[in-house]
Amino acid sequence: MIVPAATTHVSEVHDRLRRFMDDYVYPIEADVHAYREHPQTRWKEYPRLEELKVMAKAAGLWNLFLPESEHGAGLSNLEYAPLAETMGRVDFGSEIFNCSAPDTGNMEILARYGTPALQAQWLGPLLRGEIRSAFAMTEPAVASSDAANIEARIERDGDSYVINGRKWWTSNAPHPRCALYILMGKTNATAPRHMQHSMILVPANAEGVTVVRPLSVFGYEDGPHGHGEVAFCGVRVPVGNLLLGEGRGFEIAQGRLGPGRIHHCMRLIGLAQRALEAMCRRAKSRVAFGIPLSEQGVVRDMIARSACEIDQARLLTLAAADKMDRDGNKNARDLISMIKIVAPAMAQSVIDRAIQVHGGGGVSQDHFLARAFSYARQIRLADGPDEVHVMALARHLIRQYAPAPAAASACR
Amino acid sequence: MIVPAATTHVSEVHDRLRRFMDDYVYPIEADVHAYREHPQTRWKEYPRLEELKVMAKAAGLWNLFLPESEHGAGLSNLEYAPLAETMGRVDFGSEIFNCSAPDTGNMEILARYGTPALQAQWLGPLLRGEIRSAFAMTEPAVASSDAANIEARIERDGDSYVINGRKWWTSNAPHPRCALYILMGKTNATAPRHMQHSMILVPANAEGVTVVRPLSVFGYEDGPHGHGEVAFCGVRVPVGNLLLGEGRGFEIAQGRLGPGRIHHCMRLIGLAQRALEAMCRRAKSRVAFGIPLSEQGVVRDMIARSACEIDQARLLTLAAADKMDRDGNKNARDLISMIKIVAPAMAQSVIDRAIQVHGGGGVSQDHFLARAFSYARQIRLADGPDEVHVMALARHLIRQYAPAPAAASACR
Amino acid sequence: MIVPAATTHVSEVHDRLRRFMDDYVYPIEADVHAYREHPQTRWKEYPRLEELKVMAKAAGLWNLFLPESEHGAGLSNLEYAPLAETMGRVDFGSEIFNCSAPDTGNMEILARYGTPALQAQWLGPLLRGEIRSAFAMTEPAVASSDAANIEARIERDGDSYVINGRKWWTSNAPHPRCALYILMGKTNATAPRHMQHSMILVPANAEGVTVVRPLSVFGYEDGPHGHGEVAFCGVRVPVGNLLLGEGRGFEIAQGRLGPGRIHHCMRLIGLAQRALEAMCRRAKSRVAFGIPLSEQGVVRDMIARSACEIDQARLLTLAAADKMDRDGNKNARDLISMIKIVAPAMAQSVIDRAIQVHGGGGVSQDHFLARAFSYARQIRLADGPDEVHVMALARHLIRQYAPAPAAASACR
Amino acid sequence: MIVPAATTHVSEVHDRLRRFMDDYVYPIEADVHAYREHPQTRWKEYPRLEELKVMAKAAGLWNLFLPESEHGAGLSNLEYAPLAETMGRVDFGSEIFNCSAPDTGNMEILARYGTPALQAQWLGPLLRGEIRSAFAMTEPAVASSDAANIEARIERDGDSYVINGRKWWTSNAPHPRCALYILMGKTNATAPRHMQHSMILVPANAEGVTVVRPLSVFGYEDGPHGHGEVAFCGVRVPVGNLLLGEGRGFEIAQGRLGPGRIHHCMRLIGLAQRALEAMCRRAKSRVAFGIPLSEQGVVRDMIARSACEIDQARLLTLAAADKMDRDGNKNARDLISMIKIVAPAMAQSVIDRAIQVHGGGGVSQDHFLARAFSYARQIRLADGPDEVHVMALARHLIRQYAPAPAAASACR
Repeated sequence: MIVPAATTHVSEVHDRLRRFMDDYVYPIEADVHAYREHPQTRWKEYPRLEELKVMAKAAGLWNLFLPESEHGAGLSNLEYAPLAETMGRVDFGSEIFNCSAPDTGNMEILARYGTPALQAQWLGPLLRGEIRSAFAMTEPAVASSDAANIEARIERDGDSYVINGRKWWTSNAPHPRCALYILMGKTNATAPRHMQHSMILVPANAEGVTVVRPLSVFGYEDGPHGHGEVAFCGVRVPVGNLLLGEGRGFEIAQGRLGPGRIHHCMRLIGLAQRALEAMCRRAKSRVAFGIPLSEQGVVRDMIARSACEIDQARLLTLAAADKMDRDGNKNARDLISMIKIVAPAMAQSVIDRAIQVHGGGGVSQDHFLARAFSYARQIRLADGPDEVHVMALARHLIRQYAPAPAAASACR
Repeated sequence: MIVPAATTHVSEVHDRLRRFMDDYVYPIEADVHAYREHPQTRWKEYPRLEELKVMAKAAGLWNLFLPESEHGAGLSNLEYAPLAETMGRVDFGSEIFNCSAPDTGNMEILARYGTPALQAQWLGPLLRGEIRSAFAMTEPAVASSDAANIEARIERDGDSYVINGRKWWTSNAPHPRCALYILMGKTNATAPRHMQHSMILVPANAEGVTVVRPLSVFGYEDGPHGHGEVAFCGVRVPVGNLLLGEGRGFEIAQGRLGPGRIHHCMRLIGLAQRALEAMCRRAKSRVAFGIPLSEQGVVRDMIARSACEIDQARLLTLAAADKMDRDGNKNARDLISMIKIVAPAMAQSVIDRAIQVHGGGGVSQDHFLARAFSYARQIRLADGPDEVHVMALARHLIRQYAPAPAAASACR
Repeated sequence: MIVPAATTHVSEVHDRLRRFMDDYVYPIEADVHAYREHPQTRWKEYPRLEELKVMAKAAGLWNLFLPESEHGAGLSNLEYAPLAETMGRVDFGSEIFNCSAPDTGNMEILARYGTPALQAQWLGPLLRGEIRSAFAMTEPAVASSDAANIEARIERDGDSYVINGRKWWTSNAPHPRCALYILMGKTNATAPRHMQHSMILVPANAEGVTVVRPLSVFGYEDGPHGHGEVAFCGVRVPVGNLLLGEGRGFEIAQGRLGPGRIHHCMRLIGLAQRALEAMCRRAKSRVAFGIPLSEQGVVRDMIARSACEIDQARLLTLAAADKMDRDGNKNARDLISMIKIVAPAMAQSVIDRAIQVHGGGGVSQDHFLARAFSYARQIRLADGPDEVHVMALARHLIRQYAPAPAAASACR
Repeated sequence: MIVPAATTHVSEVHDRLRRFMDDYVYPIEADVHAYREHPQTRWKEYPRLEELKVMAKAAGLWNLFLPESEHGAGLSNLEYAPLAETMGRVDFGSEIFNCSAPDTGNMEILARYGTPALQAQWLGPLLRGEIRSAFAMTEPAVASSDAANIEARIERDGDSYVINGRKWWTSNAPHPRCALYILMGKTNATAPRHMQHSMILVPANAEGVTVVRPLSVFGYEDGPHGHGEVAFCGVRVPVGNLLLGEGRGFEIAQGRLGPGRIHHCMRLIGLAQRALEAMCRRAKSRVAFGIPLSEQGVVRDMIARSACEIDQARLLTLAAADKMDRDGNKNARDLISMIKIVAPAMAQSVIDRAIQVHGGGGVSQDHFLARAFSYARQIRLADGPDEVHVMALARHLIRQYAPAPAAASACR
C-alpha cells in the first residue's frame, strides 16, 4: 500500500485495537447477535457491552475519530481509516470504542458549532459515552435525497422555537439512553432554496416527541439503537438550541455528512474484507462434485474479483481521507462522492458472493454475513442514495472541461 | 406474447384468480406480514387464512399445479405458469390456493411414487390442505449442492428403517400442522455414487424427530412455515415408507426438483413484475431536485432495464414449461437450468432497483419489497445454487459440438 | 420454443436456406472477408456473389422479408425471424438473398409510400437486386439520436426540391451500384417539431451529390457497401420525389425503423448463437494447466450465461415479431424498443466472451468473431442508440400506472 | 492522491513530458493515424516520428522506464507510472520516448540477463532506438495462456541451437527495423514442467525466419510495428545466444512480464482518462430532446462511474508499482495480477461508454476512441488472459487462510 508508513504511535494503537477485538469482541459476537435478535432482549443493551467500553477507555481506545479537535484522539482521517476498518469488521464494533454513527457525526457538529453551554450539556456526556443521540433529517413524506425538500417546521415563538414534523430512519431514537436529537427543519420558507433550513437541538424527553415505531431493515430491527420513526408535535425548545444561526442548516449538513459517509465506507471495507476471508476459509473446507470449492473456477473468480474490488475501494477511501486531511472536507467533496458510490455497492456485491459460497447458512443467523449484507444495503440509501452522488460527481467533472468543437454542418 | 392463446377455460380461471387476489389477498397483505413478523404470533397461522382457503376451494382455485394427474386441476405447466405468477405477487399467495412449496413438490412425489396406502394416508390430507409437509434433503455438514454428499443414514432393521442424521433448511418443519417429512438419506453406502440414496416418509411425530431451531433469512424467520434445522435420531419407520425402492432417491429427486424450480421462478417473476409496477408508481409520486423521479434518466434506466429482464425471463419460463409439457421434465432439463439461473438473479436485481427507488422505506416493513428481496435471494441458493446449474448446463451444451480443428503447429 | 409450429411451407424454406448456407455461403466466407479487407479489392463486389444471388433467386430464397406485401415472399415477421437469424450467421449472408439493410427498409418505404411511377423506377430494380440504395438520415453536426435535430434542408423551388446538407453513416453510399438515396431533411422549419421533416428520393448520380469519404468501424471499412459521409449541395430533384407529403418524414421513419431494428436483432442473434457454438468447439479443443477449457469453471460460466442470454433475446425478438404481425408495427413499439435495447448489447457480450475463449485469434482475421463484434457494437448506435430506446420505453411504461399515494407528512 | 509527493526532479520531468505531448504529439495524432491506416503507408515509419525521437532524447525524455538499472532514467516504477500514463494517452506516444512494448520488456531482459557481449550487440542499439525487437512466445497451436504448453523446439547441435516452431502475436515482427527476436521454446522436453523452456536471441535476419503474415485486431493492422505470425524453420544461432541457461525460460518470463503488464495498465489508464475527458466535452456540446447530454442522467451516470473506475484502477496500479519498488517484482505478484485483471477491462468499459456518448463518430477514424478500444481489448488477452490471473490470484489468496471448521454432522 502506498500509504505513508503509519507513525509508531498509530501503529501501536492499531495493534492494541486488533488485540482488543480478538480478545473481547469476536468472542461475544454470536452472543450479542442472538441477544439483539431475540424479541425479549432486542431493545436492551447487551449487559457486557458497558464493561467493554470501560476497558476500551482504559486501553486508550476511545473517541478515535474527531480529527482537528481537542476532544478526540488526535488522529487524522487517514490515520483513523484503518482503525475504523478494523472496528467495522464486527457490526457493533465501533460502538465499543465510542466511534459509532450517528453519535460520531453529532459529536462533530457539537464540537464545531456548539456553544460552550451546549457542549457542556451534550458533548461531554456523548464523549464520555453516557448518553446516545440521533440525527433527525430524513422524512417519510418527501424525497429526502434532496435535502431541500425537507418540510419539518422550526418556528420562532418568543424565546423558543416550536417544532412540528415527522422524521424517520432516525437511528438511535429507540435506544433506551437516547437523550438528544439534532433535527433539521425549515425556519425560513421564503429564503433561497439552500438557506431555508436550520439545525436545532431537541432533548429526547421534550414534550411532543414520540418514537412512533422502529423501522426494520429486511427483518432486522437493529436494536437497541434501531431506526425510529419520530413525531415532533409542537415541541418547544429554547432559541439557544439553534445551531450557528437560522438558514445555515445546509452548511452544517455539508460538514457533517462528509466524515459520516467516509466512516461508513471504512466500516464496510472491513466487513467486505472479512467476508472475503470467510469465503476463502469456506472454499477450503467444502467439497462438491469431488473437488474442493477452493479449486473450482467460479469460486476462484468470486474470490479474486472480490479482492480486486476491496483493494481498490480501500485505496480510494484512503485517498479521500488524505484529501480531507490536506485540503478540508469541502475540497474532498468529489472523492467523498466517489467512495460513497463505490464502497457500499462493492460491499454488497462481495458479501453477496460470500453468502453464495456459504450456501444456505450464509443468509441465516449462523454467520455475520446476512447482517453485514443488510448494513451494506441500507448504506446505499443512507446519507444520500448512490444516484445523488453520481449526479453531483458528474456535474463537477463535466464543469472542468470545455465543450468539444462542433462538427461541420455545411454541405461541403 | 407468443403463447398460444389461453383456452377459454384457463383464461376464465385466471380472471377468477386475479379477482380473488384483488378482493381478498392484497387487502390483508400488510396485516399478515405484521402478524408473521410479530414475535408473539410469528409461529401461528394467521386466523383468516383458513377461511380464505375454504373460499378458494369453493371458487375452484385449488391445487392448480399437478399436471398429468387426476389429483390437480388438469392444467399443463404452460397453463399453470401465469397463474403461479399471479399468486406469486404476494409472498403467501400460493398457500391460499394450496399451491405452495414444499407441499406441492411433496404432493407430486406422493402422486407419482406413493403406494395407494401411502397416498390415502398422506396425499389425501395434503390435497385437502389439512396438513403440511417438509422435504428434508439439505444438511449442514456437507455441500448439499452436490446431493451425492448427503450423509443421513437410512438403515434397515427388520421391518423398519432406522434414520439418523441432521437436516436444515427444512421448510415447513416448524409449522404447527407439519405432519410429514420426505427425507433423503443413504441406504447403500457402497453402491455407485448416484445409487446410494433413497427417499423415505417420516411422520413428524415419530420418536427421535426434533426441530432444533428455526433458521432466519436476513432477519426473517418466515413463520409460521419457517425453515427448520431438524435432528433425526434413531427414528424408526416401517419399511413400506421407503419410496420406489432403495437407491432410487436421485431418480425421485430429479422428477421432484424440475417442477419445484420452475414454480419458484414463476412466483419470482410475479414479484419482480410487481416491483416494477411499484417502481413506476413511486417514480411518479416523488420529486427530487425539482424533477419527478419518473423523468430522471437513471430512474428510467432502472425501469426500462427491469422490464426487459422480466419479459425475457417470463418468456424463458414459459418456454421451459412448454417443453416440460411436450417432452417431459427430463428433456426440459436444460431449459429448467436456464430459468433457475436467470429468474432468481433477475428478480433480485429488479427488486434491488425498486428498493433503491423507494428510498429507506424500500428495506422496511412498509413495502413488500424487503421480503420479496429475501425470497429471491434465498432461491438463488435453494434447489441447487445457481453455480451448479451453470456448470450442468454448460456441460450439456458443450457436449453437442465437435471440437474445433487444431491450428497448424509446424514451422511452415 | 413456444413458437406455434412453423407451417410446412416455412419449415421447408428454412431447410432450403440452411442447405444453401452450408453448401455455398460458409465455404466462401473466409475468401469474401479477405477480399473485402484487402485494400485493392475492398470496394469491389466479390465476383461469385452475383452468381450466388442468381442461384438463391432460383431456389426461391429471395426477398424473404416484406410482410403484408405482394412484393415479398409472403412471410410474416414471426416466420421471417428464424430465416433472418440463419442468414445473419454470416455477415454478408442476408445480401445473397436480397435481404440486407438498408435496402430492405428502403424497399419497404417504396412499397408502402411510393407512387406507381416511383415504384417502377426504383422498387423494381431493388427487388430484382440490380441496384443498391442508401438511407440518408444521420448528420455529423447534430445529435441525430433525436431525429428532430436533423438540419438538411429540402426547399421547394418551382417544380423541384433543392437539397442542401451533409449526412454520414449512409450505408451503401460508397457501393459501386448504389443508385438511390432516401433522404430525410427539413421542409417546414416553422411547423411543430415532428412535422418539419420530409423524405425524398435522390438519385445517386444527381448533380451535387458527393460521397466525401467512407467511414470506418474500428478498422473495418465494411466495403463494398461501406458507410459514406455524403455531401448534398444544391441537389435538385423533381417535386414528385417527395414521399407522402411535406412534413410526414417522421411518420415514414416510424414505419421504416421498426422492421429495420428487428431485422438487425435477428441477424445479431444468429451471430451470437454462432459465437456460442464456436466457444463450445474451441473449449473442447484446447487444454490449459492440464485441463480442457471445456471443464474449467470460468469457461463453462461464459458458455452457460451466453446460452441463457441468447435464448432470452431470441424469445423476446419472436414476441416482438409476433406482436408486429398481430397488432401492427406501431403497437409493437415497446417490444421493438426492448429488443433494440437487449439484442445488440447481448450479442456484444457473447461475442466478447467468445473472443476471450479464442485467445488472440479471436480478434484477428482468422475468425468471424472480430467482424461480428464490430457489427454488434455499431448496431448499439444505429437506428437510435440504446439510451434513446431506454428512455422511450420507460416513459411508456410509467404512463400506465397511477402514482403511489403520498406518505403522511403531519407530525402525527 | 496518497502518493508521496513527487520529487522536484520527477515533477519537472512530468511537466516537460506534458509540454512535449501538447506541443508535438497531439498535433500530429490524426495525421499519424491516417498514415498508419492507409494501405500504402501502413507498414512504413511515419516520417516525422524519428525527428520527434531526436527531440525527445535531447529533452531528456528517453528510456524513462528501466528502474534499478544504469541504463534508464533512474526512475522507480512508482515515479514512472504517471509518466507512462501521460505517454499512453496517445497510442503511439510511448514509442517517441523509446518506452514502447515489447522493446521495453526486451531491454529489461537484456539488461538483467544479457552477457556484456550480447548487451553491446543488442541492448545498445535498442536503448539508442536504432533497432526494434520482438518477443516470440505465443503460439497458434496451443493455449499459450499456459506457457508450459509452448512447443517451439530449441535443440542443441554442436555450437549452435537449432530452432523450429511457429509463433504469432509477435508484435514488432513486421516492423521494417525489427532486428531481434527473444524467443521462448523448449530445450528440455523431459525436465519438470517449469524447467523445460529457455529463452534465446534470434537475429531477425537469420536464415529460416519468415514473417508469414501480419495479424489484424478488429480491422487494424497496427502498422508499422504490427503483430506477426512468424515461422522459425531450422534457424541456427550460436549457443551464446541462450539466456541464463537451459530450462530457465520461466524464470526470465516471470521477471519480464511483471513490468510489461503494469506498463500496459498505466498506458490504458491514460487512454481511459482521456476517454473520460472526451466524454465530458462531448456531453457538453450536444443537445438531444432539448436537453444537453451533460444534463441527462444516463450520460452523467456513465461519466461518474467511469471516473470512479479510473481513479480506483490508477490507485491500484500505483500500489502495485510501489510494491515492486519496495519488495521486488516477485513479491508484488498478486498486485500485478490485480491490475492486470482490473485495468484493461476497466479501460474497455470506459472507452465503450465514451464511444456511446460520441455516437457513430466514436467507432470511426474521427476519434482516438476506436483505436483505444482495440488496444484495451487486445490487452485483455495479452500477457496472459484475465482469467489466468484471476485463477492465480485466487489460489494465492486462499492459501493464506485456514479452512473453516466443519459443521456438526451428528443427529444431535
